[in-house]
Amino acid sequence: MTMNRQWLLASRPTGEPQVENFRLASTPVPQPGEGEVLVHNHYLSLDPYMRGRMDESRSYAKPQELDKVMQGATAGVVLESRAPGFAKGEHVVTALGWQEYGCLRPPVPQALQTLRKVDATRVPLSVHLGCVGMPGVTAWYGINEIIAPGKGETVVVSAASGAVGAVAGQLARRAGARVVGVAGGAEKCAAVVDEFGFDACVDYKAGRLVEDLAAATPDGVDGCYENVGGAVLDAVLARMNPFGRIAVCGLISGFNGVPMPIMNFRSVLVNRLRIQGFIISEQLQIWPRALAELEALVASGEMKYRESIAQGIEWAPQAFLGLLKGRNFGKQLVKLQ
Amino acid sequence: MTMNRQWLLASRPTGEPQVENFRLASTPVPQPGEGEVLVHNHYLSLDPYMRGRMDESRSYAKPQELDKVMQGATAGVVLESRAPGFAKGEHVVTALGWQEYGCLRPPVPQALQTLRKVDATRVPLSVHLGCVGMPGVTAWYGINEIIAPGKGETVVVSAASGAVGAVAGQLARRAGARVVGVAGGAEKCAAVVDEFGFDACVDYKAGRLVEDLAAATPDGVDGCYENVGGAVLDAVLARMNPFGRIAVCGLISGFNGVPMPIMNFRSVLVNRLRIQGFIISEQLQIWPRALAELEALVASGEMKYRESIAQGIEWAPQAFLGLLKGRNFGKQLVKLQ
Repeated sequence: MTMNRQWLLASRPTGEPQVENFRLASTPVPQPGEGEVLVHNHYLSLDPYMRGRMDESRSYAKPQELDKVMQGATAGVVLESRAPGFAKGEHVVTALGWQEYGCLRPPVPQALQTLRKVDATRVPLSVHLGCVGMPGVTAWYGINEIIAPGKGETVVVSAASGAVGAVAGQLARRAGARVVGVAGGAEKCAAVVDEFGFDACVDYKAGRLVEDLAAATPDGVDGCYENVGGAVLDAVLARMNPFGRIAVCGLISGFNGVPMPIMNFRSVLVNRLRIQGFIISEQLQIWPRALAELEALVASGEMKYRESIAQGIEWAPQAFLGLLKGRNFGKQLVKLQ
Repeated sequence: MTMNRQWLLASRPTGEPQVENFRLASTPVPQPGEGEVLVHNHYLSLDPYMRGRMDESRSYAKPQELDKVMQGATAGVVLESRAPGFAKGEHVVTALGWQEYGCLRPPVPQALQTLRKVDATRVPLSVHLGCVGMPGVTAWYGINEIIAPGKGETVVVSAASGAVGAVAGQLARRAGARVVGVAGGAEKCAAVVDEFGFDACVDYKAGRLVEDLAAATPDGVDGCYENVGGAVLDAVLARMNPFGRIAVCGLISGFNGVPMPIMNFRSVLVNRLRIQGFIISEQLQIWPRALAELEALVASGEMKYRESIAQGIEWAPQAFLGLLKGRNFGKQLVKLQ
């Protein structure tokens, strides 16, 4: 009997999560009932939002339940279909979580829970979890619907080498903006400029964040795509120009229960800023258009991406903890097959 | 020869302003040239924004110049007119600053610099510097254009007994919202409820801001009209509902060079908040409509207001320092005549 390995949340972290917060279980591969498809996952997506769900506190999504399979997006192949419209061998992106196999009954609820067939020949299957998936759409929304950069404006993107940041910066640059990334380490910063085409990138680990950001934004900052929060956001607030826009997509620096104080909130008034938080799963109306545009850009080679791939489901927790520490470069995935 | 007493900025404050930062001067009353009007000020308006201009730091407006008359809105009577369209005895609101007399050449640049004739019979002259002036329009814009409260939503207004807050709360309540004020002291809080008709008011001086605000907002907070910042804003952020709106009109707590950290910025992401800073002098398009609506509400008695009036130009600095400490109730004015 083929077994289905799966990672469960064993306990909630106090502060920084540990490998011990997860437990590997094994159950028989489920059999699809009438109207269901059995999917074999080839990739698990690891995303920063998963950290928030490990806590019990009030947030926009329900907490991850204890002793249940870790939730998350997955990409795989239909092994067996008893549902109309799906055939064995088709590639699908869905949200089976941190496990090797799973059954689904289409239609599945929208957004992150969606089950959608994807073309794995135009762009690779894994990319449908990154640039041409939730992270890409997240970047698209923040840049196009919130920041809307004008030609010659300056846009700062934090976590610039991450799955979302890399796309956000490239989209802002296509809109005509001067784009400055913020990333951790000289190697990442070099790649953000050389591979992703940002105009500049500030290494927040170099210890001169405020000075280096000022030097990289001589005309101030008109738009900020914020994935980090804390000191990075404060440095950007100090550089904002009048009528600047800040899209708050993530605040990864404030994870682990340590709130990061914002000291430069006064800039909101002085510069008449607009700050907008958003959750991409609530903006369903833009997904089809965003996915189509992103797929065309990746397929034509105009949109660059990187992936950090852990091999084997047994490494999922370590890969996730590495993501939270910024050890990934680009989209963090676990390859199962 | 009649003399014109005027207050000059003698020095920039380091931290809290002192009476010594101002200097009383006296010059002959100017004579109007061809095309000018000579105005005798009856009231000076004292407003929190003046504190920001005393500093030299980068802000939305130029700093108040040293050894020049303190800028500010004024209401008075035309003493002599050599300009078409203005006649002796007419009431005008303009921005002659902290002095008894001044000459102006219409048309004067817009907004705070405007020179407009007002009807001092429908509502008293002083009210054209408060409810039916810049503070009222400021409240109108934040409530109608940013928060746009829906029926049954909860709106929090900080500095609720101030010139702006009192109007903001009354407008939100007219829109069907449940309105909770934040003010300093039991007496102010009682009046905010009894006179201005707020549903509740939290005394931030009572030392239980977080708990009291939570108790006063059992359904959370959908809109916040923010005049204060710092701990008050943090307490509100912790109570925000999804898709809440925060209009940032003032951050008086961060004056005097002590930045007030914001600890609960995470709420922006979790609750998909929109935060918008604004400066009312940039929103000229809404002034005529807002002034007309506010004047009708005051004239009919539907909009309540209070004034704190210092008698005599010699008291302007003390009255201003009191305003910064929250010693005023309602619109702070200096009556000259």
